[in-house]
Amino acid sequence: VAEADAIAETVEGLRDVGRLFHDRGWSLGTSSNYSVVLGREPLRLLLTASGKDKRLLRETDFVVVDEAGQPVSATAERPSAETALHTMLARRPEVGAVLHTHSVWSTLLSDLHADAGALEVEGYEMLKGLSGVATHEHRERVPIFANGQDVPALARQVREQLPADAHGFLLRRHGLYTWGRDLAEARRHVEIFEFLFEVLGRRLSLRGA
Amino acid sequence: VAEADAIAETVEGLRDVGRLFHDRGWSLGTSSNYSVVLGREPLRLLLTASGKDKRLLRETDFVVVDEAGQPVSATAERPSAETALHTMLARRPEVGAVLHTHSVWSTLLSDLHADAGALEVEGYEMLKGLSGVATHEHRERVPIFANGQDVPALARQVREQLPADAHGFLLRRHGLYTWGRDLAEARRHVEIFEFLFEVLGRRLSLRGA
Amino acid sequence: VAEADAIAETVEGLRDVGRLFHDRGWSLGTSSNYSVVLGREPLRLLLTASGKDKRLLRETDFVVVDEAGQPVSATAERPSAETALHTMLARRPEVGAVLHTHSVWSTLLSDLHADAGALEVEGYEMLKGLSGVATHEHRERVPIFANGQDVPALARQVREQLPADAHGFLLRRHGLYTWGRDLAEARRHVEIFEFLFEVLGRRLSLRGA
Amino acid sequence: VAEADAIAETVEGLRDVGRLFHDRGWSLGTSSNYSVVLGREPLRLLLTASGKDKRLLRETDFVVVDEAGQPVSATAERPSAETALHTMLARRPEVGAVLHTHSVWSTLLSDLHADAGALEVEGYEMLKGLSGVATHEHRERVPIFANGQDVPALARQVREQLPADAHGFLLRRHGLYTWGRDLAEARRHVEIFEFLFEVLGRRLSLRGA
Repeated sequence: VAEADAIAETVEGLRDVGRLFHDRGWSLGTSSNYSVVLGREPLRLLLTASGKDKRLLRETDFVVVDEAGQPVSATAERPSAETALHTMLARRPEVGAVLHTHSVWSTLLSDLHADAGALEVEGYEMLKGLSGVATHEHRERVPIFANGQDVPALARQVREQLPADAHGFLLRRHGLYTWGRDLAEARRHVEIFEFLFEVLGRRLSLRGA
Repeated sequence: VAEADAIAETVEGLRDVGRLFHDRGWSLGTSSNYSVVLGREPLRLLLTASGKDKRLLRETDFVVVDEAGQPVSATAERPSAETALHTMLARRPEVGAVLHTHSVWSTLLSDLHADAGALEVEGYEMLKGLSGVATHEHRERVPIFANGQDVPALARQVREQLPADAHGFLLRRHGLYTWGRDLAEARRHVEIFEFLFEVLGRRLSLRGA
Repeated sequence: VAEADAIAETVEGLRDVGRLFHDRGWSLGTSSNYSVVLGREPLRLLLTASGKDKRLLRETDFVVVDEAGQPVSATAERPSAETALHTMLARRPEVGAVLHTHSVWSTLLSDLHADAGALEVEGYEMLKGLSGVATHEHRERVPIFANGQDVPALARQVREQLPADAHGFLLRRHGLYTWGRDLAEARRHVEIFEFLFEVLGRRLSLRGA
Repeated sequence: VAEADAIAETVEGLRDVGRLFHDRGWSLGTSSNYSVVLGREPLRLLLTASGKDKRLLRETDFVVVDEAGQPVSATAERPSAETALHTMLARRPEVGAVLHTHSVWSTLLSDLHADAGALEVEGYEMLKGLSGVATHEHRERVPIFANGQDVPALARQVREQLPADAHGFLLRRHGLYTWGRDLAEARRHVEIFEFLFEVLGRRLSLRGA
């Protein structure tokens, strides 16, 4: 019963994230997927099912998967096509939730900075919203990976190349992955990154900037 | 009774679409019109009546029309002035719902690309939100037609020139038509197109892009 | 009683307009004022009181004024500082409601086009949302007046110079005045104008446009 | 009891401000902090606690501090890291509420105008929303201070350099501080400044402006 309550509460939290992110334009058109770690040994990840409208996630629009990304119980739903990226990140002990979004600014900036392999952000107060960052003088390097439809291969590449101190990464012309020790922290990281992306994006359209 | 329930549910779905699209700025000022196929032999289309505020559609703000766009029962409401475009699209067997919107970005891009006769979008993950598209490498060609007030003539032109694999088209300085096998899919297509239009539009204002 | 009901319904309609326009960013910071004609002989105008937050208009945030802009009954509220513009417009027999808003785009465009004395808009489908306009080929000329704090003098100038077929006018670096035969039409005109201003404004930031 | 009621009402007002400002994008990612003067001799300031989500402030997400910024009763919450700026401003007799926000436009403009030491705004009707300003011809000078993590030192610098007639100031690449005689006025000042920042920011991206 306690476990069922914990799942119900997590589902409610993710439905709220869906409403918020759809409203912001970060999860339009059934894009995006979200996950929360339910248990560690063995790994159990609650994940949005494939192709769901994030504005109105229903209680049945989720699946629980194991470390291999397989549903742990019979379900008519398929896990998100990007499950391998979620399970890869969730294996990190400090990660309790993973949020993937598709915003206009992350789409644009991931393309503009793709050749550099990363987007660098420095000197903004909002950087302090990233876990462990204590000063605006921090420089955050957000790696950018080429987009691809072979998600397991992409997950292996990210696992090998993602620095331990990264708070998120971008897929080119696709979107943002970020995470946190719990859902609230992961959500905060999405808001921080999206704010910074908007600042950098709008800056590129201002004369004199 | 079952038919009345189906109509009531469809009306509720369209009222929700109206609230959402007005909020997004895609259906301001009584612009836009929406339709859903109720039956096929003979064709019965539930359509927004002419000149209604999409933010607060009432249950009476709809009409049911036949294949010729004529109301099938006595009503004080006129069908939308663009009925002929809806019935033309609804005759396609794979079309269950048609949504027409007026957004700022579709207005701007339909004008900028009018001479080319189409807007082309390629290489974005969000393209996968279009029905049947499995990879971001897809190239979507969105035809652009000259705007006009003779809607039956416009409908004939679109019917003759619209490729079978199109997911939508633009009317110059006017807006987007898209559709889906049901209302949920048509709504997803609006969100996908509007996201991509915003990406392409903002891209044109960025230095270095 | 019927009159009290009519006033209550009008007040409710204006509170709804306030919530909507504040949400859109067209009535921030207690800016803007709205009025509705309650009667014609003598003229009775229900008007937002001075300095009210449009997001949360209370039932007591309104005053009823006569043709001279004077409250017709004892009240602690002052009529809006721009009452003279409202009463001037309300004297036109075809005007049942007047809405004045302060948006970012109307502020910018009224400044950019001030030397020309007007903003001209032509060739957009959304123009058909203006009362009496039947084709996108319509050219709407929106006069721009210099801003000023002597509102009665400004009202006289507008009355003398405003063409009979205008649907609205701009005050430079200040905002939009528009109207309609009733509140719904005036609100539609605000949405149409704000849409068109956004189109024209964003167009100026696009390469190739 | 009366005091408890007053605190409860103030808390409710600040929760509403949080919902509004988060929705506008001015308080994302647990950024921002808000305070209201509860009493003057001795100074008692109700302040948002450190690191709270402004979208959903709970009744327990606040602390009451004294003139030195210390909590006046036992609490598990830490006052905001920027408490010293709030108490410095609250010592001014005309200040009843202080609001600090992090918006995209204030972040950008505070950087662009940093070398000039201030952002100047003149000639806009919306300036009249600032307390005591009676004409659009007013010139508002918004001082810009370098950002820093030593908040007490920053507070001393602001206290020494802030002109008596200022309505707000900017921290570079950080955000806006403004205030009012009560919460409603402070909130109005946020809306006025953010509107003006957006006007100035967008103006920089328009051809011909």
